[in-house]
Amino acid sequence: MNRIYFDNAATTALDKDVLDAMMPYMTTQFGNPSSIYSYGRETKLAIEKARKSVAALLHAHPSEIFFTSGGTESNNTAILSAIRDLGCKHIISSPIEHHAVLHTVEHYTHAGLVTSSTVKLKADGHVDLEDLEQQLANAKERCLVSLMHANNEIGNLLPIKAVGELCEKYHAIFHSDCVQTVGHYPIDLSRLHVHFISGAGHKFHGPKGVGILYINQDVKIKPFIFGGGQERNMRAGTENLYGIVGFAKALENAMANYDTDSVGILSVKKYMIEQLRQHVPDVAFNGDQEGSCLYTVLNVSFPKTEMSEMLLFNLDMNGICVSGGSACSSGANQGSHVIQALNNDPDRVAVRFSFCKHNTKEEVDAVIAKVKELV
Amino acid sequence: MNRIYFDNAATTALDKDVLDAMMPYMTTQFGNPSSIYSYGRETKLAIEKARKSVAALLHAHPSEIFFTSGGTESNNTAILSAIRDLGCKHIISSPIEHHAVLHTVEHYTHAGLVTSSTVKLKADGHVDLEDLEQQLANAKERCLVSLMHANNEIGNLLPIKAVGELCEKYHAIFHSDCVQTVGHYPIDLSRLHVHFISGAGHKFHGPKGVGILYINQDVKIKPFIFGGGQERNMRAGTENLYGIVGFAKALENAMANYDTDSVGILSVKKYMIEQLRQHVPDVAFNGDQEGSCLYTVLNVSFPKTEMSEMLLFNLDMNGICVSGGSACSSGANQGSHVIQALNNDPDRVAVRFSFCKHNTKEEVDAVIAKVKELV
Repeated sequence: MNRIYFDNAATTALDKDVLDAMMPYMTTQFGNPSSIYSYGRETKLAIEKARKSVAALLHAHPSEIFFTSGGTESNNTAILSAIRDLGCKHIISSPIEHHAVLHTVEHYTHAGLVTSSTVKLKADGHVDLEDLEQQLANAKERCLVSLMHANNEIGNLLPIKAVGELCEKYHAIFHSDCVQTVGHYPIDLSRLHVHFISGAGHKFHGPKGVGILYINQDVKIKPFIFGGGQERNMRAGTENLYGIVGFAKALENAMANYDTDSVGILSVKKYMIEQLRQHVPDVAFNGDQEGSCLYTVLNVSFPKTEMSEMLLFNLDMNGICVSGGSACSSGANQGSHVIQALNNDPDRVAVRFSFCKHNTKEEVDAVIAKVKELV
Repeated sequence: MNRIYFDNAATTALDKDVLDAMMPYMTTQFGNPSSIYSYGRETKLAIEKARKSVAALLHAHPSEIFFTSGGTESNNTAILSAIRDLGCKHIISSPIEHHAVLHTVEHYTHAGLVTSSTVKLKADGHVDLEDLEQQLANAKERCLVSLMHANNEIGNLLPIKAVGELCEKYHAIFHSDCVQTVGHYPIDLSRLHVHFISGAGHKFHGPKGVGILYINQDVKIKPFIFGGGQERNMRAGTENLYGIVGFAKALENAMANYDTDSVGILSVKKYMIEQLRQHVPDVAFNGDQEGSCLYTVLNVSFPKTEMSEMLLFNLDMNGICVSGGSACSSGANQGSHVIQALNNDPDRVAVRFSFCKHNTKEEVDAVIAKVKELV
């Protein structure tokens, strides 16, 4: 059975030429990048080359890019350091953040280190900027604003520049989980008033187990993980050398092919919307699907029937990989907290389809045919 | 120029068959292990198979093995959770722990969350167990004892079973950084009274960027990194799938070949000791080199001369990779804190030679010839 993979927001296949770029460091060039002899200098150079490349692509300074074990560690680092090192006493996030943000904020809130609140959402899932401004204006102490650049389940895009400007106006620290946008959009950090952004390699055909944390040079923090002097004393531990090289190569690919890939993927998404409307009665969409939304994500709302409740299972039986929400929470066996926060309609079933450059309209046709049977 | 790599305590070359075992997960089997459809189930299965294998080799229960981004994260997790979740108010470590332990303990001590002390060392670098017992007996509050199983610079082995028994007697939590012994010695966790051990894949021909934390089932802790439900809610973040598969394969290899490899490596080490004594005047050894010591590490003390101060540099110029101490601190441009703690003789130069199964007596001959010229 040929599988159709429409869950690219969960993870993506590693690009062949990304793997090729990683291979020398998995074979002959294995030195510890902290070692001062030839083997070590070669791999140190590879890491610094990767850092420069990533920094240039994001319009940041290389000293602002730190490699981590992934987006979750990056989010944890930003939030802890905003509390511990930057004097933030209150955190404003949204109810539809990723658990890597929500659970971290919850932990420090329960520990009594900080208070927290969430911004209001509009019906289409977008953050209510007026409410955000009001909360910032009313805050008596320094705030951390942690709002994701794009929601991983419904795809809604944050007006990140406007949020950064609000944060600047109210002297708040701004962290944005950009795990769904790094490698998917050109990001010009020199123009955004953001202190921290997180990215993860495996979301754009790079390797798993590696991410970045951008730390704006205006903020000085202590490490999250203590130990050796790696990452300029900011992230201890022998570097995930191949992961770092792969991250940079994947980001280079993504940005080099952005114009073509994004247009192609958007046309697949649009085609799927059109076909769903045409073939599936009472279909609807969660979030701002045809507005300010990721071109990679389509969150579909089906009427609940005995069949549609089994939709994910039956699609899987037919080799079609899609998800009900975030992969990170699927182990939890709960409904999506994002869909619940938006519109907790017990008579609807939400399915996230998410696309990459490998997907085709023919795959959409095959999925639609199966969905028609199953809903 | 053929390079001679005698710095295997810093990192090791990835085994070819470990890379082979990782490859399917870097190509066709790329699903997010948290996804519930076929692609995800396959990779989840690979992770759980790896966990079972690692647990069996260490005589632990699979539910006690957690995959992390490396030994440093594992050490950080153990120390933070002992303070935060297990009521430890005082930490006893030694002055020759790895920075991943020392700097972490320093941080929490400076933050006022805990007090800390170090055990006395004997002249050969071994921990003074009487002093440890006295400190434990005098402690008014619950202690965390964090002592490494083998020192990464001088190779001294801790009597881990005896330390565990002392910790049990005084109701202390015991963490052991086993980064230099996991994959180098058979470890039977069912017989050791240890609550946490840390291991790192790249120290035994496995991949970089992956480690384990063993958490004894009798202790219940909260995560260090918050977010998704991975690792049974204990370590959030999309798993470093290939890293985990590679870690298990490398450990399987290491334990299957332990008898042969350890004998072979020890004979290389002994040969080097013998040759140094024969050819280098006034040579000495740091630590308990011919006693309870890693078979992989040989820390040599040379008389300081204008030439020997440049020894590392000149060996490197001749394609010989060795180090002055831990790779993790070489960026810091300071002398080794381990050698300083043992015997801060300004008239001696310390060089760590560390071996693996690929090293030969012929390489030792070549290195000795060069050392003779250079000292």
